[in-house]
Amino acid sequence: MIRIAIIGASGYTGAESIRIILQHSEAELAYLTALPEECGAVEDVFPQFRGRCNLKIEPLDMEKLSGLADVALCCLPHKVSMGFVPKLLDAGLKVVDFSADYRLKDVAVYEKFYQVKHTDTANLAKAVFGLPELFRERIKGSDLVANPGCYPTGALLAVAPLLKEGLIETGSIIVNAVTGISGAGRNPSSKFHFPNMNENMFAYGIGTHRHMPEMEQIAGEIAGSPVKILFQPHAGPFDRGILSTIYCQPKSKVSGEQLARLYNDFYAKEPFVQLCKEPPSVKDVAGTNYCHIFATCVKGKVVVFSAIDNLVKGASGQAIQNMNIIFGLDETLGLA
Amino acid sequence: MIRIAIIGASGYTGAESIRIILQHSEAELAYLTALPEECGAVEDVFPQFRGRCNLKIEPLDMEKLSGLADVALCCLPHKVSMGFVPKLLDAGLKVVDFSADYRLKDVAVYEKFYQVKHTDTANLAKAVFGLPELFRERIKGSDLVANPGCYPTGALLAVAPLLKEGLIETGSIIVNAVTGISGAGRNPSSKFHFPNMNENMFAYGIGTHRHMPEMEQIAGEIAGSPVKILFQPHAGPFDRGILSTIYCQPKSKVSGEQLARLYNDFYAKEPFVQLCKEPPSVKDVAGTNYCHIFATCVKGKVVVFSAIDNLVKGASGQAIQNMNIIFGLDETLGLA
Amino acid sequence: MIRIAIIGASGYTGAESIRIILQHSEAELAYLTALPEECGAVEDVFPQFRGRCNLKIEPLDMEKLSGLADVALCCLPHKVSMGFVPKLLDAGLKVVDFSADYRLKDVAVYEKFYQVKHTDTANLAKAVFGLPELFRERIKGSDLVANPGCYPTGALLAVAPLLKEGLIETGSIIVNAVTGISGAGRNPSSKFHFPNMNENMFAYGIGTHRHMPEMEQIAGEIAGSPVKILFQPHAGPFDRGILSTIYCQPKSKVSGEQLARLYNDFYAKEPFVQLCKEPPSVKDVAGTNYCHIFATCVKGKVVVFSAIDNLVKGASGQAIQNMNIIFGLDETLGLA
Amino acid sequence: MIRIAIIGASGYTGAESIRIILQHSEAELAYLTALPEECGAVEDVFPQFRGRCNLKIEPLDMEKLSGLADVALCCLPHKVSMGFVPKLLDAGLKVVDFSADYRLKDVAVYEKFYQVKHTDTANLAKAVFGLPELFRERIKGSDLVANPGCYPTGALLAVAPLLKEGLIETGSIIVNAVTGISGAGRNPSSKFHFPNMNENMFAYGIGTHRHMPEMEQIAGEIAGSPVKILFQPHAGPFDRGILSTIYCQPKSKVSGEQLARLYNDFYAKEPFVQLCKEPPSVKDVAGTNYCHIFATCVKGKVVVFSAIDNLVKGASGQAIQNMNIIFGLDETLGLA
Repeated sequence: MIRIAIIGASGYTGAESIRIILQHSEAELAYLTALPEECGAVEDVFPQFRGRCNLKIEPLDMEKLSGLADVALCCLPHKVSMGFVPKLLDAGLKVVDFSADYRLKDVAVYEKFYQVKHTDTANLAKAVFGLPELFRERIKGSDLVANPGCYPTGALLAVAPLLKEGLIETGSIIVNAVTGISGAGRNPSSKFHFPNMNENMFAYGIGTHRHMPEMEQIAGEIAGSPVKILFQPHAGPFDRGILSTIYCQPKSKVSGEQLARLYNDFYAKEPFVQLCKEPPSVKDVAGTNYCHIFATCVKGKVVVFSAIDNLVKGASGQAIQNMNIIFGLDETLGLA
Repeated sequence: MIRIAIIGASGYTGAESIRIILQHSEAELAYLTALPEECGAVEDVFPQFRGRCNLKIEPLDMEKLSGLADVALCCLPHKVSMGFVPKLLDAGLKVVDFSADYRLKDVAVYEKFYQVKHTDTANLAKAVFGLPELFRERIKGSDLVANPGCYPTGALLAVAPLLKEGLIETGSIIVNAVTGISGAGRNPSSKFHFPNMNENMFAYGIGTHRHMPEMEQIAGEIAGSPVKILFQPHAGPFDRGILSTIYCQPKSKVSGEQLARLYNDFYAKEPFVQLCKEPPSVKDVAGTNYCHIFATCVKGKVVVFSAIDNLVKGASGQAIQNMNIIFGLDETLGLA
Repeated sequence: MIRIAIIGASGYTGAESIRIILQHSEAELAYLTALPEECGAVEDVFPQFRGRCNLKIEPLDMEKLSGLADVALCCLPHKVSMGFVPKLLDAGLKVVDFSADYRLKDVAVYEKFYQVKHTDTANLAKAVFGLPELFRERIKGSDLVANPGCYPTGALLAVAPLLKEGLIETGSIIVNAVTGISGAGRNPSSKFHFPNMNENMFAYGIGTHRHMPEMEQIAGEIAGSPVKILFQPHAGPFDRGILSTIYCQPKSKVSGEQLARLYNDFYAKEPFVQLCKEPPSVKDVAGTNYCHIFATCVKGKVVVFSAIDNLVKGASGQAIQNMNIIFGLDETLGLA
Repeated sequence: MIRIAIIGASGYTGAESIRIILQHSEAELAYLTALPEECGAVEDVFPQFRGRCNLKIEPLDMEKLSGLADVALCCLPHKVSMGFVPKLLDAGLKVVDFSADYRLKDVAVYEKFYQVKHTDTANLAKAVFGLPELFRERIKGSDLVANPGCYPTGALLAVAPLLKEGLIETGSIIVNAVTGISGAGRNPSSKFHFPNMNENMFAYGIGTHRHMPEMEQIAGEIAGSPVKILFQPHAGPFDRGILSTIYCQPKSKVSGEQLARLYNDFYAKEPFVQLCKEPPSVKDVAGTNYCHIFATCVKGKVVVFSAIDNLVKGASGQAIQNMNIIFGLDETLGLA
């Protein structure tokens, strides 16, 4: 059994990780930590686990941790994470990090978008971007996987075949995406107070969202040349899911049939990417690690639709998928 | 034109009062106040009024107020309100107070449930409970109307005919009610954070909700003898509305037809109480000052269902209705 | 008092029209019609009007109608409407038609997208497109106003200043829009069954939505040259509202300040178009006739956001606005 | 591996059964049937299973079935089920039946509430009511288990300790319950059309709901004497969950501590019944087979709150739990 520690277990991604690991046949929860004020019995912090998990969430004790776990899911926020990851690695654990701290290879870009100095550039250089469908081989041997952001996961899976194949103008991509509100985290705020968010919908992060450089970096790596992405996120009145609608300019005329063939080939062996015959629905992927994709042509543009659950394929599920790969397990354990 | 000041205009009941007054043909907004940190142009505090209201919400200045307004809608919270109401009355304004400070005639009950000393018992003695369908005559000549709580409004309108007629055991009433989340006010909290409240429903305030003594006091007044009410509130995943399902033991056998006749007679002339032929829906009263009621017999019990909008008939709409009565206007102005 | 007949009053736009007219000080409901199986007392068809409207919805009787009403709001579906509008005009009524039958000037385009032969091309030629902010003068003298579609209303108000000013490439417009489910009408269907639509979101009508040619026609008229629009609608889990996010290629570099100035000037005198300092929210316009707009620049594109209530500014409210204009009334009556 | 056939797999309980069985380590889907017009590849009927299940849903062929499966989950509607269950039993399968056809032991009561003649009274006599927490021993040796209704499951688990202990007046029980809309099944209807049900809540089935006699029968069996229950269901705007709030008259004074002890003892060994320290939330049990219960005393009444997922503990999960028991498997397989 792989023994898992969750560092920062008191948020939504912590809860979702717990839920998935409880169903995993070859991994188990070993140690759960959080800030002191968020600690307690799992069933008190997350009543949905009453009777399902007898662990406590405790303040992190590095000594205790090192003997207890083989891998850490590090669910800390951006900036905080890079203070802990080096210690976790030093303690001999594999690390799947949920924050952005190890995703952006260009430190200047990181420091611009996150407004903080990067304090662990050594590990940053070694970290692997944990999108298994694109970087499985690298993940296999890695000690530190930077689990992708939720929006980049949905968008990159949707455009990867186009970029790989060189079908589209790399400066033409518009990613219009809508997220469910679990993506905003567990801290209450006015915008996401129920009577304000219910029956509501709005755009945010115009031109400034931190997932934009992340998308561009990985898209550029796939394309083999710089890619410019106009990413516009929106918040929608539902719990889970990201629906991405992506508009691209093809370099030359392409048909729906060509696209279907391209995507089917590209993802033929991927368990968690499913190609649909019509636009996907976020509800169909809610609670699952699947990404549903539909690509077509409209008025000379290629339009690609993708749906994921932001907490699963966009966070905790993908982290478990990465962990499965690191340890040589069947990649779908706990997730299918 | 009646000139209205709203004291504490920055919450949901303030916004709803503004919305209604903007449609009122014989009253107008004259002065809006809030705590300094919640002040600003109305359209910045409440973007839904962009282009519809050019006023500012300002810190309260009693001198400015006294020349500007004929009546104050006092939307301050419990405990705070009784610090301001005496000054508003001294300044010559009529007052409709939204808090509980002037509802409970028994100071000991108030102090037990609200855990604070009552500091304005003189005005408490003079205040009239502002449920027009039951106390219209008293409201007419009043300077200070205690606007009823949202739950008591829905419950009392539902049981008043039974109590007045002496049809039910006064110790047998169970009020099972569900409120929309606007009833929880504008301050964000974990319970009402969208991803926690959405798709959720739960009971709260078991045996301790402050609207219980309010219901009992007024119900007792209607019945002419003490009434005991078991009131159990719940929170439901919608914005507006209170659905009350009320179970009572009749003193002797009663039929659905008798109940229909009783309620039809009792509310024949009431514009805002409508009797239905089937159980009412909260959506049918959302955004309106109406109360929909259906009473029937089931297995020897009388069961009454009522639906109101907690922000309108349960708060701001009823306040305007009271104001209309105080000033001798058509009671339905701004509300029909 | 203007006397209004609603033809096809049993759907959502009928109900919304009734709601607005009940608040109108210079117009009144005179005659409500529907298919025989959908007739009955208004309060039985729409319980939200219990006690607020004593009319019946009756099968249409042209003779009765002609003496009773000055204007018809024709809420019939596409294809059905053009069978009735000529009779309504012959009876001497002004007509505001909610269907698409009189919107598309090019009969071939209409017949392609609606898959039916146009049977009233004579009146089609005379009909005026009822977007008051752009065509107020034409509407004034008109007998037949084609009330715009909900999506075109939101999109055209958003891009009109850009097109009028010639700022953008006319082949570059992408309209990504999300509608609330009231836009799907009152007939139950599997897609919009509550447990299927709740917590869901998806795209539909890819490349085929009938509002696309409508947008292109009017946009072309504004621009003075053909405009190509890639319009992609989505359904979101809320009742009311359309949020449009529109991406355009400017002809030359343009700043956010320039855009703000352009939009402020363009809509300075428009009561129902409000310019925001941040992206608009559908909840802020729900239940109102307002359109909230924000335009900005992102990565070399102009991005415009607009929010309307699909049933009000996108249907019934705009129809009353058109009616007010036709009869020389204050344009905001019943709507402000 | 236990081979499972699902008869009537095209509805919500069929889908939920599929979801659970896909996670079951010792059982597998063997045969899925539905009416011809609802057949097709599982991933076409239920897109959420794309890539997760390669089976087809086919018209029922009894010959094919008999060799393929060890047990049938019969998800057919009331009245239809009793036409098929005898054949399934004759074919040598164990049967867990989701309909009401084998729940009500008194044929006259069945025929009154379901308005149809019972055509399989022989098997009715043998059927066991499948509430494992109360009837586990009987289920073990049974060929035919009548899976309980969703409302009875939530209500009976909540009151069983009180009835078993003889603590309450058996004529005093009021069950006030709210269900999510998945409980209404997959067929679209006007009441549950999204724009009608969203933001709505209402009571229904007043005095006539078919789960009332079911509750009374089993409650009477637990109590050892007839029990009268006033059951009032409501529909609430969420997908999954039943929240029951139950009011009972204790025979003599009882304290919250006594109740806590009673419930803790009664359910000490039950994996799926969890006792809470505060009122339960439907969201905490959504997607799980758990029942959360809280019992307390208010104003002389015992009030019990219970929350289940209507599709899991109220239907498919409980069916799998019953199947696990029948076959001597660990009762929590596929469910924990």
